[in-house]
Amino acid sequence: MSQMHGIVLFGHGARDPVWAGPMQRTAARIAELSPEMPVELAFMEFIEPVLDVAVDRLVARGATRITVVPVFLAQGGHLKRDVPALVSAAAARHAGVSVTLATAAGEAPEVIDAIAAYASRC
Amino acid sequence: MSQMHGIVLFGHGARDPVWAGPMQRTAARIAELSPEMPVELAFMEFIEPVLDVAVDRLVARGATRITVVPVFLAQGGHLKRDVPALVSAAAARHAGVSVTLATAAGEAPEVIDAIAAYASRC
Repeated sequence: MSQMHGIVLFGHGARDPVWAGPMQRTAARIAELSPEMPVELAFMEFIEPVLDVAVDRLVARGATRITVVPVFLAQGGHLKRDVPALVSAAAARHAGVSVTLATAAGEAPEVIDAIAAYASRC
Repeated sequence: MSQMHGIVLFGHGARDPVWAGPMQRTAARIAELSPEMPVELAFMEFIEPVLDVAVDRLVARGATRITVVPVFLAQGGHLKRDVPALVSAAAARHAGVSVTLATAAGEAPEVIDAIAAYASRC
């Protein structure tokens, strides 16, 4: 049976709900680039859903391999401790489904290039 | 006399100093793309320098027009209140130099595209 790969776009969250806007637009762009790959959003705090709920939703949609992609600017404190623990807990809820944690999006060369290009044009 | 445009890449900061790594790489990339445009880093907290010091440095380097580019994921709470106040205070220190605040880098379509492309490949 073939694997279905799903993505959780995982953000810190903020008190102001407009903070989720860019993540919502990112999910829409992923749907354009990779329509076969289900995407859910999740947040550490303030905004729903939490990570467990997003992983549950992807499994319900048929995902057998899930990557949690941290939409964070850098591989700092939370991503060294808190988030790995959340990912392990989510994985433990679904035997037979692999749930892995990617590196912070802000560390990716293409993201750094895009921010640099944006800043250069400001 | 021609204007010299300088950039402050402005980040929130974090307790873990490695958090500044991507911003340092972004500044290096801007130097490749636009070598004539001086760039300084600044942070709201935890990491030095603060915004006033970065603006002072750009003015000392000859900048007559300064854009503060928030390396934030979204146009949320801090960027609605705290950061505009910091920018106004920095501007008030330098008569004849324009200091303006750009939109959060995370809101830019090209940055959203880059994050989406990165997530799709994870």
